[in-house]
Amino acid sequence: MGTLDFWFEFASTYSYPAAMRIGPLAESAGVTVRWRPFLLGPVFKAQQGWEDSPFNIYPAKGRYMWRDIERICAAQKLPFVKPAVFPQNTLVAARVALIALAQGWGEDFCRGIYSAEFGRGRDIGEAFAVADVINALGRNPDAVIEESRTQANKDALREQTEQALRLGIFGAPSFITADGELFWGNDRLEAALAWANGQG
Amino acid sequence: MGTLDFWFEFASTYSYPAAMRIGPLAESAGVTVRWRPFLLGPVFKAQQGWEDSPFNIYPAKGRYMWRDIERICAAQKLPFVKPAVFPQNTLVAARVALIALAQGWGEDFCRGIYSAEFGRGRDIGEAFAVADVINALGRNPDAVIEESRTQANKDALREQTEQALRLGIFGAPSFITADGELFWGNDRLEAALAWANGQG
Repeated sequence: MGTLDFWFEFASTYSYPAAMRIGPLAESAGVTVRWRPFLLGPVFKAQQGWEDSPFNIYPAKGRYMWRDIERICAAQKLPFVKPAVFPQNTLVAARVALIALAQGWGEDFCRGIYSAEFGRGRDIGEAFAVADVINALGRNPDAVIEESRTQANKDALREQTEQALRLGIFGAPSFITADGELFWGNDRLEAALAWANGQG
Repeated sequence: MGTLDFWFEFASTYSYPAAMRIGPLAESAGVTVRWRPFLLGPVFKAQQGWEDSPFNIYPAKGRYMWRDIERICAAQKLPFVKPAVFPQNTLVAARVALIALAQGWGEDFCRGIYSAEFGRGRDIGEAFAVADVINALGRNPDAVIEESRTQANKDALREQTEQALRLGIFGAPSFITADGELFWGNDRLEAALAWANGQG
C-alpha cells in the first residue's frame, strides 16, 4: 500500500485530466494520494524565468497543447471548453483548496474547480465562480472564503509552493512517491502509481 | 492501413526510445511509418528562441528529464548511458540518414546511431562514430559520408527541417498522421498510431 503526493495548480490544463482520474486509478492500485495544491507562477519564475504560461510564451507549443488536451479529454470522456482567460488567477481557489482538504471535502472541491474552469470554460479567478463550487458542495461560500484569507492559510500556501520548489518541481501536475521519485505530467500518472506500489 | 510520419532528431533523448519501439508497434497496428530526420536546432531557435537544449537552459527540468529517460529505458529494457556531450552535433548523422533511408537501410542506421549515442554514450557528432555505425551495417563509410555531403543532400535536409517548421513542429519526436494530426513526444506514440488507424 503506497502513498503518492499529487502536486497540482488550478491554472494547469494537464492537471485537469489528472485530477479527474487520479481518484479511481489510485483506488484500484491501492495507493493513498495526498492532494497538494501549489502556485505555479512563483515556480515558473524561479525555475525557468517565465512570467506567463509557456503555452503563451511559445505559440507553436501552445497551439499544440490546446489540441492535445482536447484529444485527451475526448479520450477520457471529459467535457472540455477552452477558457477565454488563460492562465487564470488561481489564488482564491488554491487557498480554499487548502482549507477544504483539511476539512475532508477538498478533493470534491478541486474536481469542482477544474470542471468549472476547463469543463465549462468559467473564469475561476473570480471569487463568485469559486463560491458557486463551494455552494454546490453544500458549504457556506462566504465563511469558507473568509477562512481561506487568514494569515495562517496564506502562509500555508506560500510554504507549500516553496516546498514544491525545494522538491525540484518545475511544472504541474507532478507526482512524488514516498521514496522521492518525481514524475511530471498527466501522462506519467500510471508510472507514478506503479512506482508508489514498488513496481517502478 | 494508416500511415504516420515520424519526425526525429538524433540529439533528442526522447526520440531514442521512440525510434527503438516504433517499428514493432507500427507493424502490429498495421501502420506504415515514414522516418523523417530533421534538425531541432533551427526549429528551437525559430519557435522558442532557444540556442541550446531546453534541458540545459532549464536545469530543474533537465535533471528531471535525465532521470525520466533512465526510467523509460529501464521499463523498455533499453540500455542507457548518459552521453558526456549533450546535445550532440547531429549534422553528419542526419545527412547520412537521408541517404540511408532513400537506399532502404535507413531505419537500421537510425537505430544504430541512437544505440551508439544513448545506449553506449558515444559522441555521434564525431564522423568516425557515424562511420562505425555504417560499417556495422556492411556499408562503405567513406563512400556514404561522401555522398551525404553533396549539395543536393544538404539542401534536402534543410528543406526537411523547414517543412517541420511549416507543419508546426516544435520538438522531437513528433508524429503526424495523413490527416494532419500532430502528436509530440515518445509518450504519444500509441495515440498517434491509433489516430493513423482512424481510432483517434
